[in-house]
Amino acid sequence: MSLLAVGSIAFDSIRTPYGEEKNILGGSATYFSVAASWFTQVAIVAVVGEDFEERHQQIFHARGIDTSGLERASGRTFRWQGEYGRDMNEARTLDTQLNVFEGFQPKIPQHLVSAEFLFLGNIHPALQLHVRRQLSGAKFAAADSMNFWIANTPGELSQTLKEVDTLIINEGEAKMLSGRQNLWQAARAIQAMGPRRVVVKRGEHGVTLFNGEEVFSIPALLLEGFRDPTGAGDTFAGGFMGHLARSQDLSDANLRRAVVYGAVMASFAVEDFGLRRLLTVTRQDIEERVRQFTRLTHFDV
Amino acid sequence: MSLLAVGSIAFDSIRTPYGEEKNILGGSATYFSVAASWFTQVAIVAVVGEDFEERHQQIFHARGIDTSGLERASGRTFRWQGEYGRDMNEARTLDTQLNVFEGFQPKIPQHLVSAEFLFLGNIHPALQLHVRRQLSGAKFAAADSMNFWIANTPGELSQTLKEVDTLIINEGEAKMLSGRQNLWQAARAIQAMGPRRVVVKRGEHGVTLFNGEEVFSIPALLLEGFRDPTGAGDTFAGGFMGHLARSQDLSDANLRRAVVYGAVMASFAVEDFGLRRLLTVTRQDIEERVRQFTRLTHFDV
Repeated sequence: MSLLAVGSIAFDSIRTPYGEEKNILGGSATYFSVAASWFTQVAIVAVVGEDFEERHQQIFHARGIDTSGLERASGRTFRWQGEYGRDMNEARTLDTQLNVFEGFQPKIPQHLVSAEFLFLGNIHPALQLHVRRQLSGAKFAAADSMNFWIANTPGELSQTLKEVDTLIINEGEAKMLSGRQNLWQAARAIQAMGPRRVVVKRGEHGVTLFNGEEVFSIPALLLEGFRDPTGAGDTFAGGFMGHLARSQDLSDANLRRAVVYGAVMASFAVEDFGLRRLLTVTRQDIEERVRQFTRLTHFDV
Repeated sequence: MSLLAVGSIAFDSIRTPYGEEKNILGGSATYFSVAASWFTQVAIVAVVGEDFEERHQQIFHARGIDTSGLERASGRTFRWQGEYGRDMNEARTLDTQLNVFEGFQPKIPQHLVSAEFLFLGNIHPALQLHVRRQLSGAKFAAADSMNFWIANTPGELSQTLKEVDTLIINEGEAKMLSGRQNLWQAARAIQAMGPRRVVVKRGEHGVTLFNGEEVFSIPALLLEGFRDPTGAGDTFAGGFMGHLARSQDLSDANLRRAVVYGAVMASFAVEDFGLRRLLTVTRQDIEERVRQFTRLTHFDV
């Protein structure tokens, strides 16, 4: 097993201008692992409650995802309820029930400790650091974070940043973390905190990778149908790291390719609610969309 | 003369978080023509007042810009005062004095009526249409517009859109004009109004070209120094059309190149106040920045 993700599993209730779904399977570990499963074998470490049923488990197994690190706790699974307005850029949270996620202490099964690619989903930075130190041999360790941890646990987050080599973060949070409005300056300031790579997720405006001194930007694919942005960021991370773990190549050219694969997977995720589109995609769909990205961005001078 | 621009000349007073300048030469015809002058010979049709001095005229002449269509009216030149907040995305207008621009009736000198490339800057759509009909032989006619005309002169704007082949417009205004929040849908709706090409200026998020069925997106160059966004859109249009007029090639591949040249010129414009950086740029600077765009966006799969 070369790729491990630690994060959340949730039941989401989502309303967008294009529809509404209640209690559908979501969470960072879910979107990440389903996206990555199109590229490589992936394992998750997460916690679920008693309401997590065999049919949910089956979704992971059908994608070949290793769930030996899935802990079942008494109580209910993490639940999130949110809605998106007309511009779909930001969710308004209507309700959060942490449930079993509140006491989550990631436990890494022995056979996963040797994973070379590690994704630390958006959980408490002290837990991220704890996992990072258990997988000290991982050659590529990426973390996500969010405004809540930036504001409330800056010391722990700072320590985590010193020990990961890649931060995958939203544009607004990159600016908040660095205190800089200029994205170039924000990324350079974050690199000075530890990670040599900063991947900035910019939603409908694409993704920018700062890899050492190199910078790579890709716009978002323009989609006629765009129904639900939930999980797009973790889906991006899953495609990005799935490609890296499959290819075992950390060159700048291959990191750029990984950004494209991440963006491709995210472009599928947002076309329908929850995992629906990600579960029906085919290898041909993925390759066709890579070609669309090439057509979208190609020029020669 | 193959390229003609009709638009405004203004004296701008601008405050940004990076400084302040008073009464500096600006306006859509100014930024457009200075940017285009790096690529081809360009002429402007505009109006100025008695406060437009020989030293202002010299700025155009030093760039080889044909000012035979520059009308001198009694009164003062158009003046605009604005400021930008921390995110630099939108100007707050503090004062607008239309002055001689209020009664502007573009008069096209006879030797310019045969221009093949026509840029209709952001003026009343009825005036744009009037000019367009005088240059009925132009093989590439592009118009800009803004929220004010979309809201207040929809009938005239609709007529203008039927008779131009390219609309160059801000993202927010594209959404307003079409009534669509989804950019793909917005562009398709605008194409249905007339122009087969829609160029959407997205500020710090780059530019998207809808050319018939083809779509091309380029992210903005990330700049360490970004001091004043005033004029960036018209500078983009000047580089875009300057390249087209120089090359006389309207293929999709060349339109993509033109977008890159437009974005390159805009990236210089925003590095300093007013025209300052655009006047000191060199051919080598332009080519080096084209290479930066290539590095920023290149991937192979």
